Amino acid sequence: MKFGLFHSVQLPDPTRQQEYYEEALDQVLWAEQLGYESVWFTEHHFSRHGIVSSTFSVLSYLAAKTSDIRLGTAVTVLPFHSPIDIAEQTATVDLLSNGRLDLGVGRGYQWGEFNRLNIPMDEADRRFKEALDVLIQGWTSKVAFDHDGEFWTFNDMTVHPKPIQRPHPPLWVAASSQPSMDRIAQNGWNLLIGQGESFARVGEQINYFGSAVGESGSAFDPYQVTVARAMYTHKDKKQVREDSEVPFMWFKETSAEVGAPPERRGELLPENFSEYRRRFSATSSVDYEEMCENVVLFGTPNELIEKVQLLSDLGVRKIILFVNYGGIESIKVKNSLDLFAKEVMPQFQD
Amino acid sequence: MKFGLFHSVQLPDPTRQQEYYEEALDQVLWAEQLGYESVWFTEHHFSRHGIVSSTFSVLSYLAAKTSDIRLGTAVTVLPFHSPIDIAEQTATVDLLSNGRLDLGVGRGYQWGEFNRLNIPMDEADRRFKEALDVLIQGWTSKVAFDHDGEFWTFNDMTVHPKPIQRPHPPLWVAASSQPSMDRIAQNGWNLLIGQGESFARVGEQINYFGSAVGESGSAFDPYQVTVARAMYTHKDKKQVREDSEVPFMWFKETSAEVGAPPERRGELLPENFSEYRRRFSATSSVDYEEMCENVVLFGTPNELIEKVQLLSDLGVRKIILFVNYGGIESIKVKNSLDLFAKEVMPQFQD
Repeated sequence: MKFGLFHSVQLPDPTRQQEYYEEALDQVLWAEQLGYESVWFTEHHFSRHGIVSSTFSVLSYLAAKTSDIRLGTAVTVLPFHSPIDIAEQTATVDLLSNGRLDLGVGRGYQWGEFNRLNIPMDEADRRFKEALDVLIQGWTSKVAFDHDGEFWTFNDMTVHPKPIQRPHPPLWVAASSQPSMDRIAQNGWNLLIGQGESFARVGEQINYFGSAVGESGSAFDPYQVTVARAMYTHKDKKQVREDSEVPFMWFKETSAEVGAPPERRGELLPENFSEYRRRFSATSSVDYEEMCENVVLFGTPNELIEKVQLLSDLGVRKIILFVNYGGIESIKVKNSLDLFAKEVMPQFQD
Repeated sequence: MKFGLFHSVQLPDPTRQQEYYEEALDQVLWAEQLGYESVWFTEHHFSRHGIVSSTFSVLSYLAAKTSDIRLGTAVTVLPFHSPIDIAEQTATVDLLSNGRLDLGVGRGYQWGEFNRLNIPMDEADRRFKEALDVLIQGWTSKVAFDHDGEFWTFNDMTVHPKPIQRPHPPLWVAASSQPSMDRIAQNGWNLLIGQGESFARVGEQINYFGSAVGESGSAFDPYQVTVARAMYTHKDKKQVREDSEVPFMWFKETSAEVGAPPERRGELLPENFSEYRRRFSATSSVDYEEMCENVVLFGTPNELIEKVQLLSDLGVRKIILFVNYGGIESIKVKNSLDLFAKEVMPQFQD
């Protein structure tokens, strides 16, 4: 199996953005040393739930700081950008990293982001399809092309630079519906499965996707699927919960806060994480235990070996670990990555 | 005086994009070692005249590879981008470089770029003004803001991350007309003077801009003006011309090729630089000599000391050197930078 990071920077204390960036980047260098094979950054905008808004700038920085680790996005929200901008930025990262880019793409799901950009959410799917089409032409077309679409128009278009990986960097599409998985299979793209899907759903999706690839006439390679999972490990079982629960719940609650339209939004969380922690009540602890059972990788190394074995049995071969929830100390994240690399990963050598 | 690079990557041989990027980036590291204080990348799209299309990705890469040199754009073409994208990308570079970003902005001038992006050139000025207004709000606003403009609409907007430099990274505006210089002066921005302006025009513009700053009620600081100049130096006078003429003429001719609308465009240049060089005739040599006299810094170190003294007498305190025209060997560029740093720069210590 292959293990990577599904990475992000949150802003639990509004005064510490630079420190959070430095810590997250330091975690990537640490992960590379420990043998993790990839890092995939989320793209988020306009809120403390995620402050890596310019993912390709961050990946370019890491292209210079690293040498082997693959550099991905999970995901680039195509409806938010000109597809020509994305073609240029991705090719630049691919070039600067000597062919290490993995591009994850998605439709977006946060009401707050669509609203701030004044893009109707019901355009997301059409924008996504149009953008992906233009992006692939921008990467691969050997002749100048015209595009006259619903959202973008380009004339006599030729993009520079070109990506290093040919015909283009691996394309990973976030999807869970069957029609979306069919489309990914038919196009020879790769599947990203989100960190919120239960273990059971992961198995169902891999099954379905594998069949869809087969029906498209290709042999299914399980490395065509990447699964994201929140992870925290510590040798002391009590410490696992102590360290991970409040930060991870804060992460989930900020997601709900920015994801929902105003009419479905509850009371805003406190501005500062320390206040959130002070007010945190274990009433949400049912969620935590249920998540540990069915969704996340929180546990001692031995517990995680079992969970990863379960995923492996379901056909999972690539897992990317979400470890930096915001509000968790960086040293704990690094220790957890270290322990996972030493105790869990060796059990799943290819 | 301060000296930097006005930098760019061209594509004189269509098969060698990665090599050209590597050479240009290597020149920046070399320049930092030699004591140059800044590097400013041009933004160009869709042609061999310039293949750095994602300037902030390149600057992020350099943020990781360098430690002191300031990182600029000259210029970011505001009409081509969402100003919120630019606010996010610039803040990210500023953060990753610990406050080393200089942002140059302009309206764009190439017909080929506007046409390919399907943006009418007569919108350039209005787009520029609207984008700059949103960009500054995105960087600085302490409360969420709405923007309902001619070209962009945003709601309840808050940009993350924020730039490190406060209130925002230095803003440099490319301009030559008096009304534009008035506006720059009134807003406390800084002036970029292009590499094509004659020495005499540079003097006139600095004079005018200095007065405009005074009239706006501020004291004029000559470091508020940056002047771009093509530069090549070698101890052997004949070698100066031998090394610089054909590459620089190729650069100028590709600019004309992409800059002009079809009805004003001549025959296309050969696809490959070696063919261009083979066909090159000295009929254009009048241009070369006239440019050496009035515009560029091509000459022996002693000749350049005179030219830089002339610029200094005209009030110039910051010069950025365009050295990588495409078609010139990288080792020659590096030797020229070295010679300039050793023989010319020490004559103009602050």
